[in-house]
Amino acid sequence: MVMSSFFNENFKHLTPYTPGEQPQDKRYVKLNTNESPFPPAPGVLKVVNEAEAKNLRLYSDPELKPLKAAIAETFSVEPANVFIGNGSDECLNFAFMAFGGDGMAYPDISYGFYPVFAAVNHIESDVKPLTTDFRIKVEDYFGIGKSLVLANPNAPTGLTISRTDVAALCEKNPSHVVIIDEAYVDFSEEPVSAVGLTKTYKNLLVVQTFSKSRSLAGARVGFAIGDAALIQDLETIKFSTNPYNVNRLSMAAAVEAIKDQAYTFSNVKKIQENRKYTTEALETLGFMVLPSQANFIFVRTNKIDGGSLYRRLKEEGVLVRHFESERIRDFVRITIGSREDMEMLVAKIKGIISA
Amino acid sequence: MVMSSFFNENFKHLTPYTPGEQPQDKRYVKLNTNESPFPPAPGVLKVVNEAEAKNLRLYSDPELKPLKAAIAETFSVEPANVFIGNGSDECLNFAFMAFGGDGMAYPDISYGFYPVFAAVNHIESDVKPLTTDFRIKVEDYFGIGKSLVLANPNAPTGLTISRTDVAALCEKNPSHVVIIDEAYVDFSEEPVSAVGLTKTYKNLLVVQTFSKSRSLAGARVGFAIGDAALIQDLETIKFSTNPYNVNRLSMAAAVEAIKDQAYTFSNVKKIQENRKYTTEALETLGFMVLPSQANFIFVRTNKIDGGSLYRRLKEEGVLVRHFESERIRDFVRITIGSREDMEMLVAKIKGIISA
Repeated sequence: MVMSSFFNENFKHLTPYTPGEQPQDKRYVKLNTNESPFPPAPGVLKVVNEAEAKNLRLYSDPELKPLKAAIAETFSVEPANVFIGNGSDECLNFAFMAFGGDGMAYPDISYGFYPVFAAVNHIESDVKPLTTDFRIKVEDYFGIGKSLVLANPNAPTGLTISRTDVAALCEKNPSHVVIIDEAYVDFSEEPVSAVGLTKTYKNLLVVQTFSKSRSLAGARVGFAIGDAALIQDLETIKFSTNPYNVNRLSMAAAVEAIKDQAYTFSNVKKIQENRKYTTEALETLGFMVLPSQANFIFVRTNKIDGGSLYRRLKEEGVLVRHFESERIRDFVRITIGSREDMEMLVAKIKGIISA
Repeated sequence: MVMSSFFNENFKHLTPYTPGEQPQDKRYVKLNTNESPFPPAPGVLKVVNEAEAKNLRLYSDPELKPLKAAIAETFSVEPANVFIGNGSDECLNFAFMAFGGDGMAYPDISYGFYPVFAAVNHIESDVKPLTTDFRIKVEDYFGIGKSLVLANPNAPTGLTISRTDVAALCEKNPSHVVIIDEAYVDFSEEPVSAVGLTKTYKNLLVVQTFSKSRSLAGARVGFAIGDAALIQDLETIKFSTNPYNVNRLSMAAAVEAIKDQAYTFSNVKKIQENRKYTTEALETLGFMVLPSQANFIFVRTNKIDGGSLYRRLKEEGVLVRHFESERIRDFVRITIGSREDMEMLVAKIKGIISA
């Protein structure tokens, strides 16, 4: 990459995040970025219309009041407990800025953006290895003297920690913030969401997104729930960088999406069924599949290495995600799509490993 | 404001930016945030539709290729010379991060966000006073040993500097970046845009927006044009904080808006006519009106102070913007809207000052 001679010394070390590939050379079945196979809720499709397009001449509401109200109602909290970001990435970046003063702890295998958020904000990272079976050992984070961020379910493993674990983390780190990144929590059959605990623990911040279970990845809306003082800190950062962070159309879409919980849960149920189907089918083919509670599965086989499986599937028109990092390079991460997509995937994998 | 005990020491000093008020208590004629009175281009209204809403399940293109191509074509540059932000505020914040390593210079009277971008990024500000007639003295910025940002036309004055001035600034600061914030440049009758100079000066970054002349304030799209190396630095910041920064609908809307230059220029012409009408009408009422090249005018009278005029107009259902800062508290800034809005404004002001 070219870098200008004017670039701030503070950022010359940065290795930016690499988003999942979006190749334009042909039409792929995209099982690489954990998008939903279902369209957004019917109400969303109605509100994205000419009347709303005409209103684009006016600024969006920097306080995002209608969406804060809708999220607050859904989660039985107050609007003052809700922060809304331009995607949950923005919520996470602001949380690193606001609460990473003493450093930030997170697992070695987790969302690949955490080290980048730390680097761009000059926050010291305290990286804790997952166990050999890829679980988070919560005791590793007790009394560590800094804030921490855990994805639950974790990515790319799909494994969860319990609410009891989250409560313990909050109690053992009373002077720092426990950030739980629940991007995939709606897909969990175990009731692991920590939103309810935010009323008890003033140092707990739960981050969620509209990108997965609510089929709005392209709208860029994420949110955080926590004590009003934590939320106010995030608002201070937002109003010091980009007050109009969420546009009018995305706010209108998100209001409709969050109201239609029945639609969301119906889609979640299908994903859970397809996850079960795919897990069992790949296990039958000899794969090891981590017991995922997310809308993806993390799998490996001794018949083909992860990089080769990724490349072979891409040749066949199916995108999955492969990570080069040492501990997980044998794996691929597969997004759970429609039943049709998953049957096709299983057939292609069967063809590849028996070739 | 409440602040949590967990908030990073680095940000406890922050005074966030205050956006123009968006009161919800009644319907106002909004002449306070420099929005366009005209709807977005007809093509925008067509592309914000159900088909595009269905695609919201998929992530937006982090490289924003179609919009980069459309902007590049419009300005006769290459896509590699274009950075796109979630509003020009994001472009500016990233430019402060990328190029403010040695500090940032800007005028005492200008966009109120510059000091906030400096504070949030811990960048030293070098504030240069405007002249007594509110002009930028470009010589103040020669050889200053740091990057600088000037709005052209400046806000809230509406006054411009020439291309020759911009060229001189670039030549006199060869080791730092000259950022020209051209949010209002399309409304200028003088050809002051510095975009053409970016081919000559590798240290020139020009920032523009879709929020004003292109009637897309609510879509949140801004862009920067400059040497490919400068753009790459901004991309490094973006991909280290929020790669999917512009959502699908806003990108589609912006592509249509930038293609329809005829519509933009036709609206600009009306604003220029209404600016002339309002300037002359207020001068007839004894106002001093700075000779604005933007879609707002900055005015004062000895018949009523700025704060009182702002409050009286608000009581009458018209919002204008008043700033408390010492040198300009006698003024109000009035957005140029439709002819009907401006006639109503003039009548109301006439009533207020003759009461």
